[in-house]
Amino acid sequence: MNAVDLIVAKREGDELSDEQINWLINGVTSGTIPAEQTAALLMAIVWRGLGPQELATWTAAMIDSGQRLDLSGLTRPTVDKHSTGGVGDKVSLVLCPLVAACGAAVPQLSGRGLGHTGGTLDKMEAIAGWRAELSHSQFLAQLQEVGAVIAAATADLAPADRVLYALRDVTGTVASIPLIASSIMSKKIAEGTSGLVLDVKFGSGAFLPDPAMGEELARTMVGLGQAHGVDTVALLTDMDQPLGQAAGNALEVAESVEALAGGGPADLMEVTLALAREMVALAGLDADPAEVLASGRAMDAWRAMVAAQGGNPSAPLPVASEVDQWTAPASGIIGRIDALAVGVAAWRLGAGRARKEDDVSAVAGVKLRRFHGDRVAAGDVIAELHTDDPYRLPAAHEALSSALTITDTSPEPRRLIANRIA
Amino acid sequence: MNAVDLIVAKREGDELSDEQINWLINGVTSGTIPAEQTAALLMAIVWRGLGPQELATWTAAMIDSGQRLDLSGLTRPTVDKHSTGGVGDKVSLVLCPLVAACGAAVPQLSGRGLGHTGGTLDKMEAIAGWRAELSHSQFLAQLQEVGAVIAAATADLAPADRVLYALRDVTGTVASIPLIASSIMSKKIAEGTSGLVLDVKFGSGAFLPDPAMGEELARTMVGLGQAHGVDTVALLTDMDQPLGQAAGNALEVAESVEALAGGGPADLMEVTLALAREMVALAGLDADPAEVLASGRAMDAWRAMVAAQGGNPSAPLPVASEVDQWTAPASGIIGRIDALAVGVAAWRLGAGRARKEDDVSAVAGVKLRRFHGDRVAAGDVIAELHTDDPYRLPAAHEALSSALTITDTSPEPRRLIANRIA
Repeated sequence: MNAVDLIVAKREGDELSDEQINWLINGVTSGTIPAEQTAALLMAIVWRGLGPQELATWTAAMIDSGQRLDLSGLTRPTVDKHSTGGVGDKVSLVLCPLVAACGAAVPQLSGRGLGHTGGTLDKMEAIAGWRAELSHSQFLAQLQEVGAVIAAATADLAPADRVLYALRDVTGTVASIPLIASSIMSKKIAEGTSGLVLDVKFGSGAFLPDPAMGEELARTMVGLGQAHGVDTVALLTDMDQPLGQAAGNALEVAESVEALAGGGPADLMEVTLALAREMVALAGLDADPAEVLASGRAMDAWRAMVAAQGGNPSAPLPVASEVDQWTAPASGIIGRIDALAVGVAAWRLGAGRARKEDDVSAVAGVKLRRFHGDRVAAGDVIAELHTDDPYRLPAAHEALSSALTITDTSPEPRRLIANRIA
Repeated sequence: MNAVDLIVAKREGDELSDEQINWLINGVTSGTIPAEQTAALLMAIVWRGLGPQELATWTAAMIDSGQRLDLSGLTRPTVDKHSTGGVGDKVSLVLCPLVAACGAAVPQLSGRGLGHTGGTLDKMEAIAGWRAELSHSQFLAQLQEVGAVIAAATADLAPADRVLYALRDVTGTVASIPLIASSIMSKKIAEGTSGLVLDVKFGSGAFLPDPAMGEELARTMVGLGQAHGVDTVALLTDMDQPLGQAAGNALEVAESVEALAGGGPADLMEVTLALAREMVALAGLDADPAEVLASGRAMDAWRAMVAAQGGNPSAPLPVASEVDQWTAPASGIIGRIDALAVGVAAWRLGAGRARKEDDVSAVAGVKLRRFHGDRVAAGDVIAELHTDDPYRLPAAHEALSSALTITDTSPEPRRLIANRIA
């Protein structure tokens, strides 16, 4: 087989055979297909797409490029959640211990953030001593005992995805539904979970702002999950405005702890509990997540999870040396706070990274003080801007310059959960 | 500027600015943009195309990546020809000395063949001692004295094209009219010629078989030439059947010498003289190429050109150790001999190369004995297959297995020159 012939076939819109796709994924993983050929193939896939059979084979080949974890030895039912990412999306931090406290094992293998969207591992690393890397036996033991694990994926989990993702990131080939779906699902299927709930975001702060695109991605991923024996459900949720009040690593951990203590913002709790109910149902458990949260058992699971990974759940979180204010330019009612702008502002303050090699600041971020539907006067504080580097403040203010919509009538209430796909 | 942003812009169908294109071509030439990013960009260009302004800037940037030759010191008018390539297309070997004998300087910087299409330098190298590499001063002196030069392009002629072409070849991104047009025209414009005649082939043996695509390519190239002050005319010519009788390096040199001696096949002479008349007109010369050919002065120019580059025009050409026969499978009239099949057969016999590093055989090739419109009996010899390696014969016969169309009525005469674009 010859890579050029397969690139040309895909460029012409032809369907690749199972044998051809397996050959390509093997060559990409082993490096026998050079990066320039893979890059051209990826752009041809962005152009022409992958048909259902091609996508199924492509995803299976990515899973088979590494090891699929075997979690069948656990006595707890396994269920996981994946979010396509957003601004202030700290749901995993609350959901993982909450669903564990309901009786499930949640094997949450997560990633780091890039650009304006935060990463779960970056957030957890704001906790002193907490470590993302676990050995295979530590991972299994913690899953069985605590039920909740948030950890970095190991190198043998869908290694084809690591090669493809790194290349997509630098070749402008990220935005393709089959490539996104196969990337996410190959990792989640390889992780060994029996059930999976997908939180597919839409709106300005989402990776795919268009709800129709989000729905297509959700349907594609649900189909891939079912095809591989993973019971998969997707919720389409609104990411047009930030979720909760905080965007930034330590700020989001603090908000998550408040949520676990019963004091979470209404939008965060609505999305978290909806996802928790789906996960509990997929796990076949008879538990009410709201009750479990109120009982304090979710907080116990959080503390056990943090401690099991070397963190001190009682230690104070780091705080920024500089806190500036973002104020309302006019009086009226807040119609919208743009999620993308808030995400970019948090990034500019130091919470995010432009390249995957960059470090992130634990303390930097945006803490909203006023929300959708609030009446404000000109000069009122809309948000605090946290950073250790005051030279970053002008860029954050610049990012926020048109983030606020002030109206004179009350806006429609937000509809956070737009659709459910199963 | 950031390569990913520009790849994404092109992927989305946006127009790139002059500044962006200059930055890209500089980065490609210097190697600061890595191959995988260039490959993704090239596939996005195959997908989205380049608008007229983008293409003009892209081509100008490719020219400016090296030196544009200055031929203004010559007393002869300069005019060149470029063919998009075909099977049996030895026109340059006849045309270059013929137009020189008419009074022009023909600075023919040529390439080597790839796949089923032959390369002019490969053909000339069948002549013992002849060398393709000339210094800049040798090139100018020979142009002034002989008028005819066929030589390899130097490293400083549109170096961006060398990088881009090598990458297109391995990434399935050759088939794009703006990329083909800019590749050809950047080299021809940088070569310093004042006039240029393009022989754009269509039909099975051509690089772009579809006549409509050929015409679009021709118009694109003529526009680029005019925009850079090169008087450019294109003829669209038929490459559905081989041109002349021979496909293969030494075999084509022999046929070219016969043509210069006045004994060339009718189809070859029709195309060659039509191109010669265009070149003579662009050079502003008052000469009739057919008369110059008949006078023997074109043969004199050939011999002078070969000798000036170290070749012995009187030395016998090398011949193959094995000559096999391709015979008619049935009786009737030859309706068509497929050019692509003949080109692939010559390649299989050793005349062509699969990769640019490969060597070619001087003696290998196909010599047709019967042609379009000839009446044949089953078993009659249609062609001789020449090679030094008899193990190559089965693959050549295989390539020819469906090359012959035998009918019972006389086919329409071939219309070799389908259109003229100026």
